[in-house]
This record gives sequence, structure tokens and C-alpha cells, in this order.
Amino acid sequence: MQSLLLSRRDIAFMLYEWLDAEALTRHARFQDHNRETFDAALDTAEQLATELFAPHNKKSDNEEPQAVPGEHCLDVRIIDEVKTALDAFSAAGLMAAGQDYERGGMQLPVVVEKALAAYFTAANVATSAYTFLTMSNANTLLKCGTAEQVRRYVDPMFAGRYFGTMCLSEPQAGSSLSDIASRAVPDPQSGVDGERQFRLSGNKMWISAGEHDLSDNIVHLVLAKIPGPDGQLIPGVKGISLFIVPKFLVDEDGSLGERNDVVLAGLNHKMGNRGTTNCLLNFGEGKFQPQGKGGAIAYLVGNPHQGLAQMFHMMNEARIGVGLGAAVLGYTGYLHALDYARNRPQGRHPAQKDPAQPQLPIIEHTDVRRMLLAQKAYVEGGLGLVLYSARLVDEQHSAETPEAREHAARLLDFLTPVTKSWPSQWCVEANSLAIQVHGGYGYTREYNVEQFYRDNRLNAIHEGTHGIHGLDLLGRKASMQDGALFKAFGAELRKTVRKVRGSVGAPDALPAELAELANISRELLAHAAALDAAWQAVELVTQKLYAAGDMNKTLANASLYLEAVGHVVVAWIWLQQALLAAAALDGSDADFYRGKLQACRYFFRWELPKVEQQLELLASIDTTTLDMRDAWF
Amino acid sequence: MQSLLLSRRDIAFMLYEWLDAEALTRHARFQDHNRETFDAALDTAEQLATELFAPHNKKSDNEEPQAVPGEHCLDVRIIDEVKTALDAFSAAGLMAAGQDYERGGMQLPVVVEKALAAYFTAANVATSAYTFLTMSNANTLLKCGTAEQVRRYVDPMFAGRYFGTMCLSEPQAGSSLSDIASRAVPDPQSGVDGERQFRLSGNKMWISAGEHDLSDNIVHLVLAKIPGPDGQLIPGVKGISLFIVPKFLVDEDGSLGERNDVVLAGLNHKMGNRGTTNCLLNFGEGKFQPQGKGGAIAYLVGNPHQGLAQMFHMMNEARIGVGLGAAVLGYTGYLHALDYARNRPQGRHPAQKDPAQPQLPIIEHTDVRRMLLAQKAYVEGGLGLVLYSARLVDEQHSAETPEAREHAARLLDFLTPVTKSWPSQWCVEANSLAIQVHGGYGYTREYNVEQFYRDNRLNAIHEGTHGIHGLDLLGRKASMQDGALFKAFGAELRKTVRKVRGSVGAPDALPAELAELANISRELLAHAAALDAAWQAVELVTQKLYAAGDMNKTLANASLYLEAVGHVVVAWIWLQQALLAAAALDGSDADFYRGKLQACRYFFRWELPKVEQQLELLASIDTTTLDMRDAWF
Repeated sequence: MQSLLLSRRDIAFMLYEWLDAEALTRHARFQDHNRETFDAALDTAEQLATELFAPHNKKSDNEEPQAVPGEHCLDVRIIDEVKTALDAFSAAGLMAAGQDYERGGMQLPVVVEKALAAYFTAANVATSAYTFLTMSNANTLLKCGTAEQVRRYVDPMFAGRYFGTMCLSEPQAGSSLSDIASRAVPDPQSGVDGERQFRLSGNKMWISAGEHDLSDNIVHLVLAKIPGPDGQLIPGVKGISLFIVPKFLVDEDGSLGERNDVVLAGLNHKMGNRGTTNCLLNFGEGKFQPQGKGGAIAYLVGNPHQGLAQMFHMMNEARIGVGLGAAVLGYTGYLHALDYARNRPQGRHPAQKDPAQPQLPIIEHTDVRRMLLAQKAYVEGGLGLVLYSARLVDEQHSAETPEAREHAARLLDFLTPVTKSWPSQWCVEANSLAIQVHGGYGYTREYNVEQFYRDNRLNAIHEGTHGIHGLDLLGRKASMQDGALFKAFGAELRKTVRKVRGSVGAPDALPAELAELANISRELLAHAAALDAAWQAVELVTQKLYAAGDMNKTLANASLYLEAVGHVVVAWIWLQQALLAAAALDGSDADFYRGKLQACRYFFRWELPKVEQQLELLASIDTTTLDMRDAWF
Repeated sequence: MQSLLLSRRDIAFMLYEWLDAEALTRHARFQDHNRETFDAALDTAEQLATELFAPHNKKSDNEEPQAVPGEHCLDVRIIDEVKTALDAFSAAGLMAAGQDYERGGMQLPVVVEKALAAYFTAANVATSAYTFLTMSNANTLLKCGTAEQVRRYVDPMFAGRYFGTMCLSEPQAGSSLSDIASRAVPDPQSGVDGERQFRLSGNKMWISAGEHDLSDNIVHLVLAKIPGPDGQLIPGVKGISLFIVPKFLVDEDGSLGERNDVVLAGLNHKMGNRGTTNCLLNFGEGKFQPQGKGGAIAYLVGNPHQGLAQMFHMMNEARIGVGLGAAVLGYTGYLHALDYARNRPQGRHPAQKDPAQPQLPIIEHTDVRRMLLAQKAYVEGGLGLVLYSARLVDEQHSAETPEAREHAARLLDFLTPVTKSWPSQWCVEANSLAIQVHGGYGYTREYNVEQFYRDNRLNAIHEGTHGIHGLDLLGRKASMQDGALFKAFGAELRKTVRKVRGSVGAPDALPAELAELANISRELLAHAAALDAAWQAVELVTQKLYAAGDMNKTLANASLYLEAVGHVVVAWIWLQQALLAAAALDGSDADFYRGKLQACRYFFRWELPKVEQQLELLASIDTTTLDMRDAWF
């Protein structure tokens, strides 16, 4: 039976035929690798995801983590299958898959690491969240922490013995991080970590994996402010510093010491993603008295007041992770819907209504095919975008020239809000279509697709809401470095356009027996022209928005800008895939490539044209929403 | 505090200022009524909905109906609050609100009845479903049943002592009713109801309110086939007949007799709408032995083989009900989001980022206003469409001339698939935006909006899926009676266009001090022109689709046609509301009317232009989805 998690054929297409992951093995860091080692890692991921993650996906949704009174504070109880799965994940070395050999890692490229992650997320987004948070946390400390901090906290995380969190939001400060009020005061009583020790107090909201008994220890990375000499907190993001707050203090020899003063105040009960604990944490309430007094012991990471910049290492990685999660939840929903549509008989063709004839599998109905093709276009487009971004992370670190590395960094920076947001919007739509294909069955918890829909709805909210990413794309990425990021992307898009024009030749000159090839060539040329025109329109609109002379007007419709640019970006992702598919049609796997071409066709005929109206609205500096008044609602 | 269920101000605007419900009181049937009696009924509905329906909405989602082993079969246990609320609903006479005085009714017009229903559905869609099913069932029997059937089953339903169901689907026949396999065989042992008695057997799926202990009896209306002399069922819809199958047989004097042979086989566990039991029912399994033998006793309604036509009485009513449910779930979500946005401080304006300043209520952020304005446009547009349709039901029965009644019937027939489907699509989108306005809080079950989103997702599936209504609109309604329905709607739309042109005068001729009025007039004229053009485009596209020469091509993209027509219809609904608002701007309630104008502006600037691309695609007889092959997925 075909896997309902992901299409391995498609992963192979993306990694090897399109993104050329094998080229990375020419780089010293990846020289021990080749397609076989990548495939072996994928085999492991697929197997573990299928055997240990997918089977409890529904159960952990039904039996979500419970806060239960412990000896001194609230504990959390989680079904056993979660720890079993996570232990196996760590035991397979996957927590450190991308790390140095000396850290116990496998030195896999990020693009391969994300393909592995895709399997676990598709199988069980809630359980796999514990791994991604831990890896993002560890990567941040690896970059910003001291050698001692790495030894004490990072290595146990890569080994899977400790798990990590990111503690940013507070009840009064969600999207507005400048308003966080947690405070960290230097601790005169110096502890295990010398002068870097602080006492931290405050409340942190929406902390995924904030409390559980899945790992020996929990390493919280916490944003807080160090008061000035007057005892006041510096307003704004400039006053924010980053701290390590371990649940249990760690002794010199790595053994666990006292319980730190951080406790669970309560769990949030979500619509989806129920298996991931989501916590309100209280720091420094005095519930525990580490080293003889209350206040959570905290260790400064790097220099003071650099907290937000440091946390962005984690957030940028997490944002690609969110896009990945959204894409693969869409992907597995699509495969479930496809499987259902092939096996569910219902109704007959409009032109052939004889009720004495047996019913057809519903995939025979054009409207069902529409819903499946839309899903395919969304989820393969979304996953393509995420893996392309992951490939840029590798390129950013391992390209041969500094210019190439910088170009990759710019592309990645530009694409990050899109990579996070586009799948979070359109792959939820794919999940809705997967429900629709199932009819009433899809709306029940007896089937799987309704959970994907609920799970996926989170992704437009966390790691920066849709609106925040709109502001990031239009307000920062489109204009920063004098537009260099924006131009870098435009150049890349036009490279693809030229590649299409250079590859397909002159279709009209082809002999009659190659009529099909000529048609496909004509179509790809038309797609390239449409993409080129769409990007030109984006360029003009961006100029017009910045010429509005009032940032409130420039940014008023930033979310719409994000959506329009997102569709152009994914059209470009599809055109790249289609170009390869067209060249492979005469091979043994023609059906696969025809599917790619048809999905690309769908995207260019049904989706990309939507952008025109959006860009027209943006170009008109529409103030409908800006002018709306509270009293008029 | 403002109600978070619905805006009473808006209901009053729609009923009295726009749809002129008071004009109905000139009709003999409604002559005892006036605005005061309508308002009194609305007061009762709002109060009961607020005090008895809304408070257990979350509880009945958390503690959904349970199947528990009873003495002879599975019973269903439902939280007590549901019965308390429903008993109060019946005691207030609301089950018969629209019925004749002699039936114990109030003879309220349908448009008022739907406004009452709006309150109950907004408060608790799951509990109110029991009332709508009962009323639809009773209305169908009132139309198609014998006097004796009415006396025995209908009167107790309008009194709230019996509840009703509609049993259409079977496990192997959902959308494809022609494939139902339930069979009803004439019973030689004639019972209480003489020659109309049959023995019915089969399995019915997705039966809402199919089993419960909320009422003394349950009246199932069941589609089944009567075998021919050869024992074979006639294939197709022509073989379908309609039957009454009461849970308990009813004696001559109205007392309850034996338990009939219909039992619960299992409950479906839905993503939302959890408080409404949704059942798989087994008929005629022999679990009970009414009149000494197995087989559910069933009474034929009307003539044999008329079942589907009869059931369409119920379905057409239910379809308006689905549209209503979708619209008001969107509406209450919007009001919750608005309330949250006014009270939640977070962040500052882009141009004024001083972190020492206090945070703003999030309604001050343009992107939040965009999301609220979009919700307002969707939900007031959706509710407007539903109440307009309800008003047509009244017009169909009470207009003065046969021509006017026929015109109303045609309009209603044309609009029904749109009235059902448009809110089911766009008011779910409104619910998604309501979550987004709440940020992380909106994704939790501690708040209300995630439940609205889950509850509302059902509406694109039941009472005919989105795809089915696309086929109904393009394949039947657009062409039937030689296009008379289609033309009737076009004439009505153009009447509105002319009305705008006739009312607003020549804005350029207005004096300078009336500049604002001139601007509004210009805008309404532009809207009217856009609406006129959009409908003209729909007319052309419809012709082109029918000229495709192949029904598979004509109907391939029927869902897209439904969506495009839906947006044009709702733009028309908005223009009607805006025209009234523009005329009322100088009154005491200017903010309310400015809100209407701004929402209309939003719809015409942000939404209606989407249709252009959809119609272009349709006009090109696009075969992307038709050409897609199973093997290519």
C-alpha cells in the first residue's frame, strides 16, 4: 500500500531532480554523503514516522495532555506513546541529524533534514513538535551560547535527554514583544555559572512543550528585561535579553540538581495540535527555592540587550518549520483524500445517468478531480517552497563564493515570510478540500482529515501571525538593503523565465508527430510570460506603495501584498518543477510527470490570475480598511 | 452589554427598512400582526436564546451525546440543558410560530420566523437543529400527508412533544439518492393506518436527531423503495417513496403504543455540531417486533414513487436553514471578534512605535479592521441573502397576483443553491478570520470562536454538497423553464441597478457643501455599473457554457460557476442595503449606516472583482480538471 504520509516519489523528485541535493556532497562538510546515505536516512524517517508517530496521532488528539497536581506543583500527564516515539527518534540520532560528527551528529544538509522532518510532521504534528522545538533551541544556543552552556545544555538536547522551549509571549505581549515585562535581576549569590547568573520572574504564555515528563530536563530559552539602575525596564525591544532557565539546575558533572523556580500555571486547550502541551508558565513565583531562595535561576546568553536578535535565529528556523508543518499536513490530507476518492463509489457521469449501471469511484467526477488537483497544486507547491528555502539555508552556509552565499541569504530572508505564510493559508484550504472530498465522513473523527484541518489552522497564528508576516514582507524585506533582497528574488525568478525560453525551443518548428511536445512547450512559454508579467506588476505595485507618502497607507494592505507575492512565488516554484517534468515525459515515469504538468497548469490557470485583482487593489492605494472606524462596526 | 449573538439593530434594518416585513400585514393571513408583534416575538427569541441556548453551547460540544446500552438496544444520553432549552422553545409556541392559529400557531411570516431562528442558531446550532428538523418534517407532512397523519404526527410535533428527522442517505448512497436500497413491502396485516401500512428495512446514515430522549416520540420521514411484483427495486430516483416511521407506534387516541423496529446502530462523532446526535439507524432488523413481527412499520406518504419530490419540500426549506445557520455562525463569530478587538490592547501604529506609549486596542490596527470588515461584509451579506430568500417564501404564498407569486417562486428557486452555499463558504471564512483576530486565544477552547469554525464547516457538506449545488445551479436552475428562473433574477438585479441610477441623481450637480453625499452617490453609481457588468458577464458565460456541446464540459467547472454567481448575488444584496443606508445618513443613526456603506464598499472593491477571473476561466471552457487522469495524481 502507498504511504498516506507523503509521496516518496515526489520527495525524490524534489531533492534529487530539482534541488540537486547531491551537489552538496561536493562540499567538505557533506563529503561522506551521497544519495544512498540520504535515502537511508529517509527510509529510517519514513519507517519510524509510520510505525511510531502516525499510530497515536488520533489518540493524542483524543487524550490530550492533562495538568495533574504533583507533589509541589502541577505536573503534566501525556500518553505513553509519545515518549516511546520520541525516544526512538532520539535513539536513531535524528535530533542531531544536521549536527557535526563531534556533537554526535550526522552532518546531513538542512534540505535533507527537512525532508526527514516532513515525515514526522505528516505523521504526527503534535508529537514531532517536541523535536523541532528542541532542535531550534539547541541550534540557537550553539550559535549564541558559551562553550560551557553548549556542553551543559545543548549536547543533552541533541542526545534527546533534554528538551527545549522558546518563551517569548506573555499574556499582555503576544505579537508585541516590545511590551514583555519579565525581568531578570543579577543574582549576587553567584552559582554554577559564575557572573552570568540572574533571577528571573514573570509569566510566559503559549509555551509549547513548556511542561511534561518526556525528557529528563527542560531547557527554557526566555526573553526578559534587565532593569536599569533605577529599577525600571527599558521600554521596547532594545531592552530584551535572552536567558537559559533550566527546569532542573545542572551540576558541573552534568547530573541534575535542584528544581528551578519555574512552574506550570495552566494548560491551553487548543482546537488542534492537542498533543503538544501548551502552557502558561510562572517564573520566579517562589514555589521552589533554588540555592535557598525564590526566583528562577537564569543564565544570560551572549550579551545583554541582544535577546531579540538571538531569538530570531530560532524564529527564522521555526518559521521554515511552520511552513513545513503546514505543507505536509496539507500533503497527508491530500493523499488521504486521493485514497478515499479512488475507493469510494458514488454516482455517475452527468452524461450517463443510467441508475442500473454500477456507481463510479468518485475520482471519476470532475468536481472531485478539481478538489484533488487543487490540493496537489497547493501541497506540492507548498512543500516545494519549503524545501527550496531549506536548500537556501545549505547554500547560505556552503556555497563556494561569498557572493553566492550572500545571494542565498538574501533570497532566504526575502522568502521566509512567504515560506511561513503561504502554506499556512493554502494548505489549510487543501485540508478543507480533503474534508469535502470525503463528504460527511470527512467531517467525522472516525476519519483523519478533520484533525489535519484543525491541526493546520494553528500555522497562520504562531511564529508571527499572517498580518505580522505581511508587515515583515512589505515593510522590511521589500525595502531593506535598498531593495537588495527584493531584487535578488526578482533576478532568480527571471532566471527561471529565461531558462524556460532557452530550453523549450521553438514549438512551431516541431514536426507534426511531436504535436504534444509542441503544445507543452507553448504552454510553458505562456506560463513563463505570465510569471514575468506578474512579477513586473509586483515591482510596480511595490514602488507605488512606497510612494504613498504615508506608512499607514503603504502598509494598510500588507496582508494582501503577502498573499499576492506568495502566489507569484509558488507559481515560480511550479514552473521550475514543470520544466523538469516536460523534459522527462518520454521516460518510464510519464504519469508522474504529467501530473506535475497538470498541477502546474492548474496553478497558472486557476490560481495565478487571482493575483491580478489583488495587485490592482494594492496599486490603487485602497483605503477601505484604513478608513473604517470603530464606531461604524 | 451588546449581545454577541446578533445585532438587533441590523435585524431591524433588514426586516423593516429593507425587506418591508410590515407590508405583509396587509395580507389576510398576517392581519393581526404589526411591527410590535414581530418585535415581541424577536424579544422572546433573543431572551430564550441568550438565557437557555447559549449557556450550554460549549458544554454540549465538550460533552457530546453518548450511545449507552439500554434495555433492548442502544439509547442516547444527552446533557439535561438541551431538553430544558427545547422544552422552553416549544412552551413559547415557537415550534409552530409560522403555523395556522388552528394548529396552535402564531401565523408569523417566514421572514420573521427565520429571524427568530437566527437567534437560536447563533446561540447554539446543535440544540436548535432539533427544532428545525422537526419543523421541516412537520411542514412536509402538512403538505403531503393525510388529515389523519397530520393529526397523529404533525400536531404533536408543532406542540414540541414529538421531534422529527429526515432519513435520506444510506452508507452506500450519500449524494447519489438514486442508489438507496431501503425497501418497504406492503404489510398484509393491516394496522392502525389501514392500507397505507408497510414493513420497511434498511440502514440510514447521517441521521441528525435520529435517536435521543428529548421528546416523547421521534417521527422519521424515510425514503425507501417499494419492490415491484418481481421483488426487484426500481433503479433510480423514480422508484423512491416517502414513509413515516415513528419510533413508537401511535394509537388512535394519540397515546404511545409499541416500540417500532428502528434502532440506533451507532453515532457519528463529528468535528463540530457535536450536540446534535448524528446516527446510523437500522430499520427492520427485528430487534423489536411491532404487531408481533419484525420489520419497521411504515406509513406511505402520498402516492408511491413521489418520495423525492415530496422530500424536496423538506430539503428546500432545510437548505435555506443551512444558509441561515452558516450566516449566523459567521455573524456571532464576527461579534465575538469585534468585542475582543475593542478590548484587547496590543502593539502600536506603524508610524508611531514609541514603546513608552500604552498599547492600542487591536481594532486600531488596519489589518485587524480589514479582518473585521471582511467578516461584516460576509456575514451581513450572508444573512441578508437568507432573509431575502425567506421573504420570497412569503411572497410566493401571499403576493397579490399569480404573476407576482410565480416571479417570487422563480427567484427563490434560482437563489436556493446560492442561499445554501454562499454563506457555507464565506461565513466559514469569517469564522477563520474571527479566530485570527483573537490570535492564539482564538485557537483555544477557552474562547468561543474555534467552535463556530468547527460547527460551520459542516454546512458545505450537508443538504447537498457544494459540488451538488453547483450542478443544481448551472445544470438545472440556469436553464430550466427555458431560462425563466435565470431571467427572473437578472430582471430583479437590473431593477436594483435602475433604482440606484434613479435615486442618486447627478452627483456632479450637487453644491460643494454636499461633497460627501456627491462622493457616496458617485460610488453607488460605480457599484451599480460594476454589478450590471458582472451580471452581463454571467449571462454571456452561461450561454458559452451551454454552447460547449458536451455536458461534461458544460458542467465541469460548475462549482466555480456557483461561486462566481454567488459573489454577484451578494454584491446585489449589498447594493440594496447601501442604497438605503445612503438615504439615511443624515438621521440619528449615521454610524450604523456608514458601516453599511463601508462594508458595501469593501465588497465591491475587494470581493466582486474576484469574479472577473472566475468568469474568464469559465468562458474559456477550461478543461484542466476534466482532463486530469487518475494515474497522474
